[in-house]
Amino acid sequence: MAEKTNPIIAESGSAGIIELRKMRLKLPAEGFNLECGRSLKEIEIAYETYGHLNAQKDNAVLILHALTGDAHAAGRHQPEDKKTGWWDFMIGPGKAFDTNRYFILCTNVLGGCQGSTGPSSVNPETGKPYGMAFPMLTIGDMVRAQKMVVEEFGVQQLFSMAGGSMGGMAVLEWMLRFPDSVRSAMIFASTSQLSPQSIAFNEVGRQAIISDPHWQKGDYYDKESRPETGLAIARMIGHITYLSEKSMDKKFGRRLQNREEYGYEFSKEFEVESYLHYQGLRFVQRFDANTYLYITKAMDYYNAAADWGKGSLEKACARIQAKTLVLSFTSDWLFPSRQSKELVKALRQNNSDVSYLEMDSDYGHDAFLISSETLNRVVDSFLDNLYQSGGA
Amino acid sequence: MAEKTNPIIAESGSAGIIELRKMRLKLPAEGFNLECGRSLKEIEIAYETYGHLNAQKDNAVLILHALTGDAHAAGRHQPEDKKTGWWDFMIGPGKAFDTNRYFILCTNVLGGCQGSTGPSSVNPETGKPYGMAFPMLTIGDMVRAQKMVVEEFGVQQLFSMAGGSMGGMAVLEWMLRFPDSVRSAMIFASTSQLSPQSIAFNEVGRQAIISDPHWQKGDYYDKESRPETGLAIARMIGHITYLSEKSMDKKFGRRLQNREEYGYEFSKEFEVESYLHYQGLRFVQRFDANTYLYITKAMDYYNAAADWGKGSLEKACARIQAKTLVLSFTSDWLFPSRQSKELVKALRQNNSDVSYLEMDSDYGHDAFLISSETLNRVVDSFLDNLYQSGGA
Repeated sequence: MAEKTNPIIAESGSAGIIELRKMRLKLPAEGFNLECGRSLKEIEIAYETYGHLNAQKDNAVLILHALTGDAHAAGRHQPEDKKTGWWDFMIGPGKAFDTNRYFILCTNVLGGCQGSTGPSSVNPETGKPYGMAFPMLTIGDMVRAQKMVVEEFGVQQLFSMAGGSMGGMAVLEWMLRFPDSVRSAMIFASTSQLSPQSIAFNEVGRQAIISDPHWQKGDYYDKESRPETGLAIARMIGHITYLSEKSMDKKFGRRLQNREEYGYEFSKEFEVESYLHYQGLRFVQRFDANTYLYITKAMDYYNAAADWGKGSLEKACARIQAKTLVLSFTSDWLFPSRQSKELVKALRQNNSDVSYLEMDSDYGHDAFLISSETLNRVVDSFLDNLYQSGGA
Repeated sequence: MAEKTNPIIAESGSAGIIELRKMRLKLPAEGFNLECGRSLKEIEIAYETYGHLNAQKDNAVLILHALTGDAHAAGRHQPEDKKTGWWDFMIGPGKAFDTNRYFILCTNVLGGCQGSTGPSSVNPETGKPYGMAFPMLTIGDMVRAQKMVVEEFGVQQLFSMAGGSMGGMAVLEWMLRFPDSVRSAMIFASTSQLSPQSIAFNEVGRQAIISDPHWQKGDYYDKESRPETGLAIARMIGHITYLSEKSMDKKFGRRLQNREEYGYEFSKEFEVESYLHYQGLRFVQRFDANTYLYITKAMDYYNAAADWGKGSLEKACARIQAKTLVLSFTSDWLFPSRQSKELVKALRQNNSDVSYLEMDSDYGHDAFLISSETLNRVVDSFLDNLYQSGGA
């Protein structure tokens, strides 16, 4: 494992040129035991780092991605890359996650398809990709793997951590599972458990994948075709839920795509249809269908109250020691503010140090992924207060 | 065509035993010209009637169904039928649509698959089912076919008409297209145009059907398998949008289906998943996939403001003469109250006689299909006032 972190290229405000690295977890002979009762003999976790770990190793900040995110949170892999990491507007010198001050770490979740061990990885027992032989995962499993990566860096307590959507669920799980290891934490557009509506949307997405004849019971890695159509449909469904009705109205309205009048044919006539198809096509180029199945299932399973409080979120939150910031967005209907407020209430019932902000936004669930001065200021101030009050 | 209406069996509150009938429209030699520029040489429309047409023929009420509805709005086809028509709680002796007073008519839309001519009907030019050779339809086309049925009964002006969701769009189209022919009208949970979000959901449903290998470009009628998987997925997506988050919470919560603990497998573990699968399976037994494609497209196209007001709903509504009742439901997020209010505003700007009620309900978009004392009272009072003020 490389102890040295990635150098920051002197590029104002950018985390610079970043290398995606992989860490093989040091597992005992029986492997990594999962909540489902099965185990993994080998685990690699892909990660990136931004900034430098200080001598005391108390300035580490862990960033946790959402369902389809990855370890590439900031900067570029190559100078000519047009696309930066998914949270580039938040991470870099002088930004909220200030790389001049903090050591930022982002890992691809266990089960992922962007470098970490997942269903598309080679099963050491067969020499072939796992496919559906991959064991079922939970958010808790993902978090325990992340903890091992953090410990490899010699970090006993995270200065802070942050995540949106599924990443926020993982943040909550960290605070519950490793209360001593989290000094502060930020949860964006998230929840302590999915609503039945969210489970329903996930299940329909999974059915679209499983019904694709190219899925072949998950055993498609050596085949000519992959279940791209099913995965694209799952992505289209997901994408509708990530946007708000208002943002769709503003972005597309009922405008037609490259035409003045209806064509009266089954093609992409409305701009919103073209956009969804484009999102679906782009997604299948970078994401594995089986990973989509496993990770959505992990999200469905997550239930902080059941796991840590015998059904009571208030009881569960009694474990939490971290100073917390919870942030929701007015137009997020997938993980609505109500769910964030339930978490905040449970934290407050335990006299936990929690701040809550409901940000006014038209961008729906995806708002935490969209560049925003307010988001930067809120996070910056949360981290800076803590930093000033006792240093990292 | 049978002039005599169905006899009402003396069964308290029930429309009784009803026969589904079919009417062949009397078309000119060139056929029925459609808005898309094509035409249909033959059209049959399935319909049911409840109550008796009076001598003056001024007591007729037309009921218009939603996307997946049919002509069977009330009563039973056989005495042993467990299921009644889809609006049975609204239609019958003493009910809001009182069959002792009004002559109720409900037709299956043109393009449908429950008796009316649609993509599953035999194309007279080929002797085989149309499939995708069926011409594209609009709500306006459906309404013109309904008008021909109404005229066959000798009815020049409808005493009233009512419809929810797509049925409400058709009601609006009737008022705009045939202003003299509608004395009063009721629009439930509807809109003058779909939002891009609704178009997006429709498109994903269509893609699920089209991607099903059994769809075979719509030419599956003589095949062993039909695109049932794709249609079921489309239905599952639709069904989520018909319910509210709150009703799903109440109905299913995160309860597991016939188990105490997670099975950690890709099966229907949560009750909400089982319910959606069940809804999908039930739907494919009664509905044709191609009809789903055509009717969702007709809904997407509908735009009252563009068609009748050069883009202005206010201008469009200047045509309307009917006394109107617009009703929306607080938890309907598919056709939210905002859309009903836009229509009400446009009607009021024309000093139209319009009443608006936003009903408090947790049932989401489907609320107009769920038995409700309030719904019965509101409709009864709307119709009764008109009836008393000048008779049917």
